[in-house]
Amino acid sequence: VPLTRVEVPLAADMSNRSYSIFIDPDLGAEARAADEIARRFAGVPLGLVSDDVVGALHGGRYREALESRGVRVAYLEVAAGEASKSLDTVGEVSERLVELGLGRRAALVALGGGVVGDLTGFVASIFMRGVPWVQLPTTLLAQVDSSVGGKTGVDLDAGKNLLGSFWQPRLVYADLCTLATLPPRELSAGLAELIKHGVICDAALFERIERDADRVRAPKSEEERALLAELVAWSCRIKALVVGGDERETAVDDPAGGRARLNFGHTVGHAIEAASLETDAPLKHGEAVALGMLAAARVGAELGKGDASLEARLHALFPRLGLPVDLDPWLRPEVLARVAVDKKRTGAKLRFVIVPRLGESATVELTPEALAEMLRRRKAG
Amino acid sequence: VPLTRVEVPLAADMSNRSYSIFIDPDLGAEARAADEIARRFAGVPLGLVSDDVVGALHGGRYREALESRGVRVAYLEVAAGEASKSLDTVGEVSERLVELGLGRRAALVALGGGVVGDLTGFVASIFMRGVPWVQLPTTLLAQVDSSVGGKTGVDLDAGKNLLGSFWQPRLVYADLCTLATLPPRELSAGLAELIKHGVICDAALFERIERDADRVRAPKSEEERALLAELVAWSCRIKALVVGGDERETAVDDPAGGRARLNFGHTVGHAIEAASLETDAPLKHGEAVALGMLAAARVGAELGKGDASLEARLHALFPRLGLPVDLDPWLRPEVLARVAVDKKRTGAKLRFVIVPRLGESATVELTPEALAEMLRRRKAG
Repeated sequence: VPLTRVEVPLAADMSNRSYSIFIDPDLGAEARAADEIARRFAGVPLGLVSDDVVGALHGGRYREALESRGVRVAYLEVAAGEASKSLDTVGEVSERLVELGLGRRAALVALGGGVVGDLTGFVASIFMRGVPWVQLPTTLLAQVDSSVGGKTGVDLDAGKNLLGSFWQPRLVYADLCTLATLPPRELSAGLAELIKHGVICDAALFERIERDADRVRAPKSEEERALLAELVAWSCRIKALVVGGDERETAVDDPAGGRARLNFGHTVGHAIEAASLETDAPLKHGEAVALGMLAAARVGAELGKGDASLEARLHALFPRLGLPVDLDPWLRPEVLARVAVDKKRTGAKLRFVIVPRLGESATVELTPEALAEMLRRRKAG
Repeated sequence: VPLTRVEVPLAADMSNRSYSIFIDPDLGAEARAADEIARRFAGVPLGLVSDDVVGALHGGRYREALESRGVRVAYLEVAAGEASKSLDTVGEVSERLVELGLGRRAALVALGGGVVGDLTGFVASIFMRGVPWVQLPTTLLAQVDSSVGGKTGVDLDAGKNLLGSFWQPRLVYADLCTLATLPPRELSAGLAELIKHGVICDAALFERIERDADRVRAPKSEEERALLAELVAWSCRIKALVVGGDERETAVDDPAGGRARLNFGHTVGHAIEAASLETDAPLKHGEAVALGMLAAARVGAELGKGDASLEARLHALFPRLGLPVDLDPWLRPEVLARVAVDKKRTGAKLRFVIVPRLGESATVELTPEALAEMLRRRKAG
């Protein structure tokens, strides 16, 4: 199975460099990843950051692969889970890196999912005023989503991702074998973001997922891993195109939404995710985004500007991938009220992403109140 | 007295923009500063950050000047002193900014000295992944030093400024009247950095300070403030030239030292400063740098590569400005051992800045041990 490489071009005014995402479907990827890392960081001590769950599964083989190539590795783990995306953990990790002897010439390597990537990338952006970093994403979500865009960050009490930076990795190496140790729900959640990229940018990707849904849901065979690798690379290419045109999410005048189009499904999705965290059955981010995409499809249709068949099509696809479709129970006033505090709003109105036709995006401005009203009306109707 | 404006050009690959430093020697500068801010940030809510000492002296007039121009101001103070340069304070300030209603479209304004500037600039660089900021430096040190270069940051337990960013302000407005409320030692400490800029880059600036030392030490009259404004602008222009060529301090191949030349006097100065903090008579940063410059002048002469008369010339000038000259008591092994942990070293050797001739700089590589030995030998001799 061939190793795929996706180039992520970056705008010259940001960082003046591009980087590669390697998507490796074969066993023994740690050796090839370590080759790439050792080649780029000869003589540079590395801080390898993982969490206690991923570290136990994959930390040893990556650490050994790097050390056997003569790389000096300072290894450390944070607690698995969103709570590690905090300034406290930033402080602990940074103090520990200094203790382990890392200075201005160091580089960091993030081995884990979104939390480890966001945290480690953020620490890299501020440690000694910025050191390079490498991302080894071990979840499908991190492979298709946080591998492109350079967004790093931590949470505040006041909300998620309120502190952070744009700090591009020098290299991303996605080892698809790590997905074999991923809980099925995590894989499904990653597929939700993959689907999103098809919905807003490329109908062919969406149709491919529709066709092959049953083969990517739990990839076991070499052939299934190869198929998933193809979809991951496709998805990364789409996101790179979107991000490359608008690295800092400031293109408010692009009718297709610039980078903001990636928020498709996220406005309502974030509200549902936050509400679910207060219940006994918290949703994964990707699961909440799946519900949010259903909501966004519904709003688009209500406005007469969105693809009228999108909601039904998503509704048919999601169960085949283990994703939820039960949106209506979430359309309660106290859940929808959370939309109003989403940090993406500009002024009193939200910039809401809709899909005029499968594979295309547009933005509309509407108040949180109008959004809630549209969702409630349809539910009642 | 004319308002002076210094343009700080920035390398295109960093941020693609330049900004202005206004140096205003006249009364009522808050009105003119507020005009400049209001013009740049129409409709943008501002977070005005000060400390409890500077805030009590100048917070009211700046807040009123901004609000009377229709700017929405969220005002907050941190405790005065280095302890506020911490991740804890970053978290507290950020949470408070969200509480006060600031989001992605906000901008921050730092009203204070180096601590407030470094902290606020750092928060600006990471709040919502980066918002613009304005610096209103109220100490001479902040006016001549942190007003150019875009360095922001906080301390770790493991050392000072270990976390931070390069985040350029959109505007710096130096109100020289704030210097009237500055303790005399603070003013002297600022003059040390001003002298440094002359020593490493411009003999004429140094000679001007030698000539007019008695008039700038405690500027009271309009004429003395005008003279100080001229020196501040001169100093900012020098630092802008140095930083403009090497914004991220990476030009290790520049024989003059690139941005690293600004570390002249800082290698030993930092060690002395840190040691003094454990005594009953802690030194100001600029005072320690003054001693560090004496040490660097001595090392240069010992190596046969530095200006042989520099130490004596600095020794004659410093007392006229209220700066210390008593270096020898600091040249103890336990103080010099701190040089080895300075984060600026590359590998085992230090990149040490010397002055071949007044107004010029060069770097030499030497081990911390050789440096200590040279300083001790001369002391004994």
